[in-house]
Amino acid sequence: MRAEVISIGDEITTGQRLDTNSQWLSQQLTLLGCEVAFHTTVGDELEDNIAVLCVAIERVEVVVITGGLGPTADDLTREAIAAATGTTLVRDAASLAHIEHLYASRGREMPERNQVQADFPEGSRPIPNFHGTAPGVEMLVPRTGREPCALFALPGVPVEMHEMWSHTVAERISQLQHELTVIRHRRIKCFGLGESQLEAMLPDLIRRGREPKVGITVSDATITLRITATADREEHCYALMEPTIEVIRQSLGIVVFGEEDDELEHVVLRLLKERGKTLAVAEWATAGRISEWLTAVDQHANHFVGGMTIRDRAELDSLVESTNVAADAEDCDATVACAMAEEVRHRLRADYGLAVAAYPTDPYQADSHVCVALASAERTHKWRFGCASHPAILQARSAKQALNALRLELLKDARDDAS
Amino acid sequence: MRAEVISIGDEITTGQRLDTNSQWLSQQLTLLGCEVAFHTTVGDELEDNIAVLCVAIERVEVVVITGGLGPTADDLTREAIAAATGTTLVRDAASLAHIEHLYASRGREMPERNQVQADFPEGSRPIPNFHGTAPGVEMLVPRTGREPCALFALPGVPVEMHEMWSHTVAERISQLQHELTVIRHRRIKCFGLGESQLEAMLPDLIRRGREPKVGITVSDATITLRITATADREEHCYALMEPTIEVIRQSLGIVVFGEEDDELEHVVLRLLKERGKTLAVAEWATAGRISEWLTAVDQHANHFVGGMTIRDRAELDSLVESTNVAADAEDCDATVACAMAEEVRHRLRADYGLAVAAYPTDPYQADSHVCVALASAERTHKWRFGCASHPAILQARSAKQALNALRLELLKDARDDAS
Repeated sequence: MRAEVISIGDEITTGQRLDTNSQWLSQQLTLLGCEVAFHTTVGDELEDNIAVLCVAIERVEVVVITGGLGPTADDLTREAIAAATGTTLVRDAASLAHIEHLYASRGREMPERNQVQADFPEGSRPIPNFHGTAPGVEMLVPRTGREPCALFALPGVPVEMHEMWSHTVAERISQLQHELTVIRHRRIKCFGLGESQLEAMLPDLIRRGREPKVGITVSDATITLRITATADREEHCYALMEPTIEVIRQSLGIVVFGEEDDELEHVVLRLLKERGKTLAVAEWATAGRISEWLTAVDQHANHFVGGMTIRDRAELDSLVESTNVAADAEDCDATVACAMAEEVRHRLRADYGLAVAAYPTDPYQADSHVCVALASAERTHKWRFGCASHPAILQARSAKQALNALRLELLKDARDDAS
Repeated sequence: MRAEVISIGDEITTGQRLDTNSQWLSQQLTLLGCEVAFHTTVGDELEDNIAVLCVAIERVEVVVITGGLGPTADDLTREAIAAATGTTLVRDAASLAHIEHLYASRGREMPERNQVQADFPEGSRPIPNFHGTAPGVEMLVPRTGREPCALFALPGVPVEMHEMWSHTVAERISQLQHELTVIRHRRIKCFGLGESQLEAMLPDLIRRGREPKVGITVSDATITLRITATADREEHCYALMEPTIEVIRQSLGIVVFGEEDDELEHVVLRLLKERGKTLAVAEWATAGRISEWLTAVDQHANHFVGGMTIRDRAELDSLVESTNVAADAEDCDATVACAMAEEVRHRLRADYGLAVAAYPTDPYQADSHVCVALASAERTHKWRFGCASHPAILQARSAKQALNALRLELLKDARDDAS
């Protein structure tokens, strides 16, 4: 079954409020096995609401609406549904009683205006709202020559909407499904390649109509492969995905760093833990971002012992005074990175010192380079990366490049020891 | 001009990622005087994309699309625009050169797949993207018997999209407008009444087609009236709104507590400052929420001297041991609230002690009451509120009821002194 989520309200179309209901409902519908094909947001204009409902009823089997069920004159959802389905509004006594009771329990008299919240399109039925005055609307809209479209209207207040979904709507939608299907996703996280390079390494997996489906998205240089499978049971979804995931892992090798919610900092800390090693970080180009990420995961500082964030040039010079940096030397950024890595490793008595430098170059120049160095008892490695990204992405990208360099080094050490 | 914002991507329709681009673009379009009538989100299905574009081109004058411009097989925006406008894709040499340069500056070779990012529907022109490989698409789509529809496609990466908007798209849209119009909003914040009670006090302001337009939204019992005006210049918008705002203030009186981003805590702290008074808070039913709000505004603790959050029953008993609370007394919650208010005022040596209690009743029972007390040198006031709200809203509602009680008291004192 295909579904559409509709949010109603000028406060959303004007951008004054962020719509989070559509995301939540999409997650819930997907779990139930509905394919959410469209989200639509429309302002408080009756004609637009009617038009949007008519389009939705035509193109999907399930429509879930949020908002516009309040008592005021700009709450138009009840009217719009009636108009779009060619029905009239009828007052429901039980719903009216519930609203009156709710006001009584708040020690208030129900304003006359609230009566409209008990009006329902003919042939629809109320969805109980235990904590608010706005009941929801459930309606099977007949369609010529096809099965009816199931329409559900819920209030925009998230806590009320969530409760009504769990208590009533989710159950109804499951009942509507001829054969029970569920949809499950898995995510494979990758770093170190461009989106298209990575796709080129995958044997035609990202193809429309493929089952299981593979999608690709990028966020601050981290590439996520989304695998989606549909089956009658959750276990079967996961079983269906296994071969595809195996192909991806085979094709991409160490470019894959984790799954689901893994970020590079999770993986790096896991590797440090396995090897019983500690890490200290010195950051120039990344303004403490690596330390922030590592701290969020390693609350007890078992493996990330600490970091130094250098924002001031004099501070940097003092840190690296030990080394004689010739400001004109071709690879002085690398020299500085190495000095920083060794210095921070020494000062914080850690097994590894990781440093990110962009020195003396301003990292925000398109042609500049970011240099990463990793110091251990045995040796100090250095890497250089171009950083032609948008300044807003550059920091995150550089921080990830540093963590990824460390990840690969830790994996290599593991292999060396094994051999 | 009416506008539609379209976001493209399975990661949004499946709810795996929250769409924030549509909100940002809606704010920008509104500032330019466009009325954003619709948001649409569609997954990575070519047919759905084409259908959505055709609908949009028919119903609005400006269409802004984000996403689907990447190099991979599930990036369909270029194809979809070509199909929806009955044109073919042509490769643009300059764009291709830019993409190749970008790869070179990252020390990488451009994968062949990225060439498609230089493909454009006939009759469209590229929108430069200085920091990403995906140029945007700008196209005037002819419509029979009407002015053309202006279509803009931008990448989904927020930083790139924002930059391309500011650098190119905003300017283009301004040029398209026959007479320059801008739209401005003002918000009036109210507390203490239900949505419909409040509307009933407003002389028919919330009416479709009214200029300036007045909308009403509720969030955790705070009611916001949104006034919207359209004119040729910003000053004129604000001038147009003045009479309406005056009517609102006259009609609602002290129910109006602030404007724009004001919350009750801002107003309370402003009043305390004016009167050179300090406040201490004791919270049982609200779990420290009032203190949290006040601290966020009054960083230097000039007027909010501190708070006590009581979560443990024994702690509460010790706090109020001074008073002999008969657990069965009808108004013992009020007695406790008063004891808490006086105690915290005394302990923290503040001018006012504000307390929220729900004792011995469990505040999460639908029939329970929350009691607020305010202690000053002269007297201790108490108020009782029903709390038949969803538990998730109850805390915020109770905290606001307490702050609002204090607000009204401070206003009353001010009036008393004046007289």
